[in-house]
Amino acid sequence: MEGMDKAARAAFDALFSPRSVAVVGASTHGGKVGNFVLRSALASGVEEVYPVHAGGVEEILGRKAYPSIEAIPDDAVDLFLFAVPQKHILKGFGAAVAKGCRGAVIFTAGFREAGEEGRRDQRRLKAMADEAGVKIIGPNTLGFFRSHSRMNATFMPVLSDLFREPGSITLVSQSGGVAGFGAIRFAEDRIPVGTLVCLGNRANVEFADMLDYLAEDPHTRVVALFIEGLDDVRRFFDAARRCAAVKPVVVLGAGYTDAGRKVARSHTGSMAGAQAVYEAAFRQAGLLQVHSIEELVDTAKILSLSAPPRGNRVGVITHTAGPAVLASDILARSGLVLGDLSDATKEALVSKGVLPSFMPPDNPVDLTTFGYLDRRLYVEVLELLAEDPGVDAALAVCMSALGDPHVDPFPADAFGRAAARSGKPAVVAWGAPSDAHEELDAWVRAGVAAYPTAERAAAALANLHRASRLQERPKDAAPPPEFPAELSDYVADLRSSGRVHLLEHEAKRVLDLAGIRTARTVLASGEDEAVSAAREIGYPVALKIASQDIAHKSDVGGVALHLADEEALRRAHRCMMEVVARKAPGARLEGVCVQPMVPAGTELIVGGTRDPQAGPVVMFGLGGIWVEAIGDVAFRLAPVTEADAREMITEIQGTAVLDGLRGAPPVERDALARLIVAVSHLLARFPIQELDCNPVIFHDGTYTVADARMSF
Amino acid sequence: MEGMDKAARAAFDALFSPRSVAVVGASTHGGKVGNFVLRSALASGVEEVYPVHAGGVEEILGRKAYPSIEAIPDDAVDLFLFAVPQKHILKGFGAAVAKGCRGAVIFTAGFREAGEEGRRDQRRLKAMADEAGVKIIGPNTLGFFRSHSRMNATFMPVLSDLFREPGSITLVSQSGGVAGFGAIRFAEDRIPVGTLVCLGNRANVEFADMLDYLAEDPHTRVVALFIEGLDDVRRFFDAARRCAAVKPVVVLGAGYTDAGRKVARSHTGSMAGAQAVYEAAFRQAGLLQVHSIEELVDTAKILSLSAPPRGNRVGVITHTAGPAVLASDILARSGLVLGDLSDATKEALVSKGVLPSFMPPDNPVDLTTFGYLDRRLYVEVLELLAEDPGVDAALAVCMSALGDPHVDPFPADAFGRAAARSGKPAVVAWGAPSDAHEELDAWVRAGVAAYPTAERAAAALANLHRASRLQERPKDAAPPPEFPAELSDYVADLRSSGRVHLLEHEAKRVLDLAGIRTARTVLASGEDEAVSAAREIGYPVALKIASQDIAHKSDVGGVALHLADEEALRRAHRCMMEVVARKAPGARLEGVCVQPMVPAGTELIVGGTRDPQAGPVVMFGLGGIWVEAIGDVAFRLAPVTEADAREMITEIQGTAVLDGLRGAPPVERDALARLIVAVSHLLARFPIQELDCNPVIFHDGTYTVADARMSF
Repeated sequence: MEGMDKAARAAFDALFSPRSVAVVGASTHGGKVGNFVLRSALASGVEEVYPVHAGGVEEILGRKAYPSIEAIPDDAVDLFLFAVPQKHILKGFGAAVAKGCRGAVIFTAGFREAGEEGRRDQRRLKAMADEAGVKIIGPNTLGFFRSHSRMNATFMPVLSDLFREPGSITLVSQSGGVAGFGAIRFAEDRIPVGTLVCLGNRANVEFADMLDYLAEDPHTRVVALFIEGLDDVRRFFDAARRCAAVKPVVVLGAGYTDAGRKVARSHTGSMAGAQAVYEAAFRQAGLLQVHSIEELVDTAKILSLSAPPRGNRVGVITHTAGPAVLASDILARSGLVLGDLSDATKEALVSKGVLPSFMPPDNPVDLTTFGYLDRRLYVEVLELLAEDPGVDAALAVCMSALGDPHVDPFPADAFGRAAARSGKPAVVAWGAPSDAHEELDAWVRAGVAAYPTAERAAAALANLHRASRLQERPKDAAPPPEFPAELSDYVADLRSSGRVHLLEHEAKRVLDLAGIRTARTVLASGEDEAVSAAREIGYPVALKIASQDIAHKSDVGGVALHLADEEALRRAHRCMMEVVARKAPGARLEGVCVQPMVPAGTELIVGGTRDPQAGPVVMFGLGGIWVEAIGDVAFRLAPVTEADAREMITEIQGTAVLDGLRGAPPVERDALARLIVAVSHLLARFPIQELDCNPVIFHDGTYTVADARMSF
Repeated sequence: MEGMDKAARAAFDALFSPRSVAVVGASTHGGKVGNFVLRSALASGVEEVYPVHAGGVEEILGRKAYPSIEAIPDDAVDLFLFAVPQKHILKGFGAAVAKGCRGAVIFTAGFREAGEEGRRDQRRLKAMADEAGVKIIGPNTLGFFRSHSRMNATFMPVLSDLFREPGSITLVSQSGGVAGFGAIRFAEDRIPVGTLVCLGNRANVEFADMLDYLAEDPHTRVVALFIEGLDDVRRFFDAARRCAAVKPVVVLGAGYTDAGRKVARSHTGSMAGAQAVYEAAFRQAGLLQVHSIEELVDTAKILSLSAPPRGNRVGVITHTAGPAVLASDILARSGLVLGDLSDATKEALVSKGVLPSFMPPDNPVDLTTFGYLDRRLYVEVLELLAEDPGVDAALAVCMSALGDPHVDPFPADAFGRAAARSGKPAVVAWGAPSDAHEELDAWVRAGVAAYPTAERAAAALANLHRASRLQERPKDAAPPPEFPAELSDYVADLRSSGRVHLLEHEAKRVLDLAGIRTARTVLASGEDEAVSAAREIGYPVALKIASQDIAHKSDVGGVALHLADEEALRRAHRCMMEVVARKAPGARLEGVCVQPMVPAGTELIVGGTRDPQAGPVVMFGLGGIWVEAIGDVAFRLAPVTEADAREMITEIQGTAVLDGLRGAPPVERDALARLIVAVSHLLARFPIQELDCNPVIFHDGTYTVADARMSF
């Protein structure tokens, strides 16, 4: 397993915790980016800040300014912040490298996103940076903020005010806007952000680099990502898996590659979007996927504050039923349940007079308005739930008294202590406006994640539970299978022929050599040869046209099934030749494939494709109508583990079909999982562009690949 | 169409705008509900407030207190607020009625929710109130707050501070907690709530009553509902439809009846939850369904501020791409699109220097950091979009400068004016913490709905669009069909037999008389009769066992298809009798049904059931595996209009099946819609408990009900 080498780590350390900073393009004008950046740098408390101003200004914001980078009286300036026009960047960056630059932030736009010239400039920048071992954040970025070093390398000086305490959450965002919106949500929640990095155009710092850095960053407990698109899904995936193995990684995705679309197209033409492949990679790497900035923040927050629950049973404490009902709906949809309270808990709820006499002790524990008026009751109940073996986590719902002088404040610290002692996470839906700063600060100090609605509290708890299950997944993949030398030789032969599309019997031979069960298939070059092949195979047989020019055989009359005897075979052969000649007049015909009829059973599809960004991708779905009508398929990057394959199997909507509907025998899931694993290794090992085992028929406790298409 | 009579309306008017108020159980102790209630009443600015305190206190909070209701020196006290223990309520309410009470709020719990005794007390309360024409909010409620009359009849005096301005949104919630959480969200958004009503136990004021009142309430522009459960779905539905016809109604549901479950059970045993029927009723009534308190508030807010868009084409203005990508994802999923900018708009964006030179004019209009620094650009772009015929609505994404003195404030008023002039809605994702009160107030004053993230802004705009489409739905149902007298007579005959389950040929005769195409089906009482029936019908035929004791004929060998001739028929009949006798030994056999084979085609299910709360419910789904594996069905309350039926058809997931997969001819949607309408009227007109046309085979441009089950 790769990771980050020492030199790269040192460069990142210097970038994030510089001793000295130069602001190139520092401006005297308050409304210019170069002024914002200088103010941010000055708010950083870094040892030396050197404003560079080509216009000859002598001082900006109380600091001596320099007319050029060369003029800076320091030969080891760690960090350069560039706020000059695009045309000055390359030269400036060269000068910075000469000044011992370790890291740079380039705010300026007009590179990769702006036509061929911009792309060329960015490539040059990358080459210079890579050679010098310098890490560039950007171009076209908001920059970064690091609470531990207090380095504010953005054009938002206010970040230094918003986050005065060091935090444990690192947010890495492609977009400065999403980082900004996210930072405001964290600030509103009184949760300190640890590190905020906007990658922008990613000249030479990619998500994969950040993940490798953060995996071992002692200041990062939780990683939150916002991704619009990835150039190299495979590299991201590998780094994400490494990082997610040691700390939780939450991801919000938007804007997808064409990968999923392409995989889908190879099967039916219009099945799924690229989102499917992204989501598959996220899931497979053990990332926690979320669907909005708000959910990203909510989830990172609870992960930074709470221990994972040991199980899925939640105890709800409330003074009002409605929000608890909403929370319960969300918990249930996420696989969590309201735990059954133990008799001891129920008895104590009654005997201690916690509940009013008309309220039976049950989960949710409904304290009614008495709980609103006396919040100490929440702590009493939490202490009972802490002892209850049937409860793994607590969710409290309570309205702030909104400053009413006759209601005592919620004893948040006692509540937090009780939760911490129990080792069970507790979350609160705190009904207060977010300008109730003191109340929210109290929750943060108590180590309890507080949310403005019961739904968001429940969703956050559900994500905490998902994260704990991701951590439990088996991490080690089985070694790849040893394919026989015969397979490699055969593939080499086929490739040397220069053909792209294999014939069916060839594709099946490849599968066969890889240990995948196929229906024995013989190529026959005429009616008589077909007859003797059938005699050898045994009737009934199926007959299919063999032509590298025909992808969809049945569309041109190229498939005849259930041929019971020689007479039927001969008739079918003649008919097929006649129809195919009419419907596919230009096609080169290699003959026909003869194969035994596969017993009836449940028809599935297993296949895959090679995506330019994600590499080999394996796919599984139910056959026919399921794929065509609702695109019900699951994807993963190949190769997959058996655990991955099992997840794929549970992911499809029509999973009930596998259990055997209408008296059909259930599909043997072990065999199916092993088949998916085998196909995924085949895709990973050989340069197959597209593979489509369709249908694979599951029958008699095993399976047979009845038809297969493959191309290089 | 019913509605609310004058007397009831007058009672509600008195309840919501009382001249005088009595607080029964007013307490001197700051932490008691009776003290909170009195403080709320005193904050109301109502003419007279009479504290009633049985303990002989002479004055509370500066007001003279009375030892009993009888002692109040006013014989026309409009509103009574009860904060006394449960056991005193009935007597107190009687005394209140004698004092001329028009409305009452009963905060006290311990009624319907608390066992048989509580339920009895609530029934008594209702009887007394109904007789006296008094409207009761509660028991077990937070009460209500009305901004127009300033009446605060809750135990949250702070509501009077939170909402000092009259608002146009009415929130009706079963739960006080959800109302409270919602009110806080509105307050945080600086949006005044108009009326807040918590129905609690609903002694004699139901959602239906409130909807009828609000339909004509001049102070209500938007209705928001939180519903945990309904006793009478049908009554709710009728009132909701009336109200939604004149103003938008948003609904958040949680906690469902068994209705949907039951409908589902009649088909496969475990198909869908009751949620399906609730959601169907909401949709059919024209309500806008949402899924969280936050979405309820967000949606009510935009409905109260913005005109509906005339189309689905959105123009996005931003200074940062990421949030715009997130917004676009959400818009796309909701059926909205990014409009193509006109050439005139593009030209102006360039020629006016709105965009930086490296940024092509496109949608989203990305102003880059220049837009962050100079917010006047947003107004310029909005003015261009206002003139652009390809844009129906605008979504702006912008970060607050968070108090940075070097950035001018966003010209929210100019932006709002430009939007108002254009008649196109504009919404903004405003990146600011919610304690930026001045900024949020500016947006409200400008009449622009502002949201803390791009996703929520996009979702709100999508809901505004949904609402405008709901308003466009045809409102008038076709008159019910005139069924022939023969049908009524036949149903009466069948019912007089006392049997619950009809035989197949009887069910089909009912359908036939209702104008629904069925396969002609003859009951034969032995092999010879079957043979002569088949001769008359014409081969091939199907044979099915006829027994009121057998619901699932094929499970007991009671179905034989494709019988080509007499010999096959006789063999099948003998075999069927043998197998059925073995598999269903106790069943009474009436004979066999003989019917022609229906041509092959697409198999669907149309049926329905009678729910105790919702009445007749019609159901449509794809046949077989679709229903069994993923419960892919749509429901509506019967009868339905053709527009409803068409909606049902588009609602199912596997709708592509109807378009004809794998060369199958498409299902004739007009015929399908008419069939659903006909079945719905049959269910509405006759006391059918369950009806299951399964399968209905669509073939040759028409359909045939191949099998049917019906019970009374």
